[in-house]
Amino acid sequence: MATLPSVSYSITVRLELDGHGSAVSSLTHAVEHVGGIVTALDVTSSGHERIRIDVTCAARDTDHAQAIVDALGAIDGVDVHKVSDRTFLMHLGGKIETKSKVPLRNRDELSMAYTPGVARVSSAIAANPDDARRLTVKRNSVAVITDGSAVLGLGNIGPEASMPVMEGKAALFKRFADIDAWPIALASQDVDEIVRTVQIIAPGFGGINLEDISAPRCFEVEARLRELLDVPVFHDDQHGTAIVVLAALKNALRVVGKDLAEVRIAMSGAGAAGTAILKLLMHAGAKNIVVCDVQGALHQGREDLDPNLAWIASNTNTASYTGDLTGAVRGADVFIGVSAPNLLSGDDIAEMNEDSIIFALANPDPEVDPEIAHLHAAVVATGRSDYPNQINNVLVFPGVFRGLLDAQSHTVDSDMMVAAADALAGVVTDEELGPHYIIPSVFHSNLAQRVAAAVRDTALREGRAT
Amino acid sequence: MATLPSVSYSITVRLELDGHGSAVSSLTHAVEHVGGIVTALDVTSSGHERIRIDVTCAARDTDHAQAIVDALGAIDGVDVHKVSDRTFLMHLGGKIETKSKVPLRNRDELSMAYTPGVARVSSAIAANPDDARRLTVKRNSVAVITDGSAVLGLGNIGPEASMPVMEGKAALFKRFADIDAWPIALASQDVDEIVRTVQIIAPGFGGINLEDISAPRCFEVEARLRELLDVPVFHDDQHGTAIVVLAALKNALRVVGKDLAEVRIAMSGAGAAGTAILKLLMHAGAKNIVVCDVQGALHQGREDLDPNLAWIASNTNTASYTGDLTGAVRGADVFIGVSAPNLLSGDDIAEMNEDSIIFALANPDPEVDPEIAHLHAAVVATGRSDYPNQINNVLVFPGVFRGLLDAQSHTVDSDMMVAAADALAGVVTDEELGPHYIIPSVFHSNLAQRVAAAVRDTALREGRAT
Repeated sequence: MATLPSVSYSITVRLELDGHGSAVSSLTHAVEHVGGIVTALDVTSSGHERIRIDVTCAARDTDHAQAIVDALGAIDGVDVHKVSDRTFLMHLGGKIETKSKVPLRNRDELSMAYTPGVARVSSAIAANPDDARRLTVKRNSVAVITDGSAVLGLGNIGPEASMPVMEGKAALFKRFADIDAWPIALASQDVDEIVRTVQIIAPGFGGINLEDISAPRCFEVEARLRELLDVPVFHDDQHGTAIVVLAALKNALRVVGKDLAEVRIAMSGAGAAGTAILKLLMHAGAKNIVVCDVQGALHQGREDLDPNLAWIASNTNTASYTGDLTGAVRGADVFIGVSAPNLLSGDDIAEMNEDSIIFALANPDPEVDPEIAHLHAAVVATGRSDYPNQINNVLVFPGVFRGLLDAQSHTVDSDMMVAAADALAGVVTDEELGPHYIIPSVFHSNLAQRVAAAVRDTALREGRAT
Repeated sequence: MATLPSVSYSITVRLELDGHGSAVSSLTHAVEHVGGIVTALDVTSSGHERIRIDVTCAARDTDHAQAIVDALGAIDGVDVHKVSDRTFLMHLGGKIETKSKVPLRNRDELSMAYTPGVARVSSAIAANPDDARRLTVKRNSVAVITDGSAVLGLGNIGPEASMPVMEGKAALFKRFADIDAWPIALASQDVDEIVRTVQIIAPGFGGINLEDISAPRCFEVEARLRELLDVPVFHDDQHGTAIVVLAALKNALRVVGKDLAEVRIAMSGAGAAGTAILKLLMHAGAKNIVVCDVQGALHQGREDLDPNLAWIASNTNTASYTGDLTGAVRGADVFIGVSAPNLLSGDDIAEMNEDSIIFALANPDPEVDPEIAHLHAAVVATGRSDYPNQINNVLVFPGVFRGLLDAQSHTVDSDMMVAAADALAGVVTDEELGPHYIIPSVFHSNLAQRVAAAVRDTALREGRAT
């Protein structure tokens, strides 16, 4: 599991060096010698004596990037000028913007889009509030809301620092589903305040995407908002993950020829994602599940469980297994981890049932080394982009909200989520399906549209929409 | 003051009629006969017997539009098919959208804009919160926030119905100052809740534009938010109006050769706009002002005044005038109305001082008929787009926020507002200046840039910026 150089740690180093001799070729050698990868080499200025070159290369991490810069600077006759970080350059000034959909070239257009013409449109909505979904951006808008308490693997970094992630999410909403999302980072981590704030700012939005709110607060925030609001509320860390896991598991079971209702599933992690995965698997028909947290299996005999864990203990683990994760995995058909790195060894995987399925989703370091897991399991998936079968929320949240908005749905429920998972799983044809291809790429064409259609149709069939 | 047909009441009527004879020319006659104006006539389908024509025309109001449709339908051989309202068509689906500023074409770009690359950017902001203004949309974003309590002339129509106005505002921010604004319509009109909600959602925004919040609540909301937030808070209905009025008044005084510190000013209206105008005029040096509300002049002897009115009574009207508006206007150099229609007659204006200046800003019907006022006054301005000298907030709010964002200002104060007014007034050259041209058009080139530069320079000089 050695980390490889990645474009997400890509730097551009501006150098000046002698224009003759072998100086240029020495640059590439120097970068490669310390383990970097040169991805571009641009001569930006060339004179008789000295030339200026921008060397762009991928590094493993910040320290490695510095080692590359040092190696370049150590070459005889080379001066290092400026070092730019491509990722930071990309984020300068933010990643999203607003745009006017109407022309405002002259007084007439201004009079229709703004005063006095706009008064008639406002009056129409005042007379018929449902028209807000026809005559305003509410028809196509989602608020991406976080309190900054559980951002990626970074933890509780607060609202300002969460903004790059929320903006990225908004950009993905647009890119994959033409949804107008705006990030709202909250300066409060109090459940009552979060709920009330979202309720107060909700009127202009057609959907609420909760993001990176830590458990167990996220459960209460979501449940209370669903009661209060007439637009769908979706905590992507929970339900987005659950939908992709269900889709991937259905396809993995197709690969090994097993049935969801029959397989024994061992899970590690009972936080936001784990709980949502569990509930969606059960809704889809899974019956035999044991969930472990850091203290071992959740069972009815355990004390001091919070309401969420108590619910899990009461509704899973029918055999009342009381041991640890290693024991829970023994003989199981499926392992799903959303917990912590390196909890299981190759030997543990070897003791699972034949044709086992491993979803080791802890990021960046999975519960078991995927290369070792592969020696014993039939199908392996991770959360990482540098292994096959990446479980990635980007596969579903754009399509799910597209479907909800198209249906003008007032809610999102488990049936819609199962429909989304089935649509996602169905994108992989029988011919394409295999141990290394249980889930399509996020760039698969029409992916979001197919998920959207399934969600929309389910919402309309259930009568949950306008 | 008869209302004229306007493009903001423009309709397109699809008709089918005989393709021969004089039927087509009869259409234009029919529209004009009932007072409409044909602005376009498009043949959309033409056969041997029947042709289909879209007639677009401007009407005065909804009833007049219906009269035009009826007149067209009454023509022999003409069938009316569909009537479309151009303003409503323009608002379908909302007037703004989001856009990604970064390409998301492949896995590498995704890895930089979102996980895993984005984690480094978030970490950098967590380590140095000021970087949020460099690496997120906060650098260029404004929240347009309303509680829907005082929307245009429509009153308390609530958050959903206010959205078309707030979206229009966001579109204008982009059009005139390249600012990324997003509308937030609040489902609460409680001052404490509004303040706390805005405080909680503020981290991602570089500025707060309050909009259409009724007085006196708007004063407390704004004052408390200014205390709490480290970004500028600007209630456009107050300060935007005040800046344009000050700019226009300075130029009107240039026209008549009088001095702001010397003139006697009578004002009608002590609401949000009136109070802000008063305070900015005083900050700019005006000394002799009497403010009237519906009960007459505000003076220290009046009882039961709310804190805002009591402040006005204590700080204006040094001669302790206790009469009504008509008396206050008598002998005054300047009248400024932000109140109600038809409070003054031509005779009242005739009794003002020589070379009087009239700003009758009640919309759509001014405090005095501007055509009658012109018989007695040197300069007349209104809030209407169909008379010269329109006092229009669009002239300043984009430039003011552009300047505040460029300076990364933590606040907005009266000195910056006076600087904005001076910049706006200075756009009109001595050669251009005249009774009918005291204020430029909103489409005047570089207007926002000049206002922005003045605000930015003042903020930087004061050290109120990052």
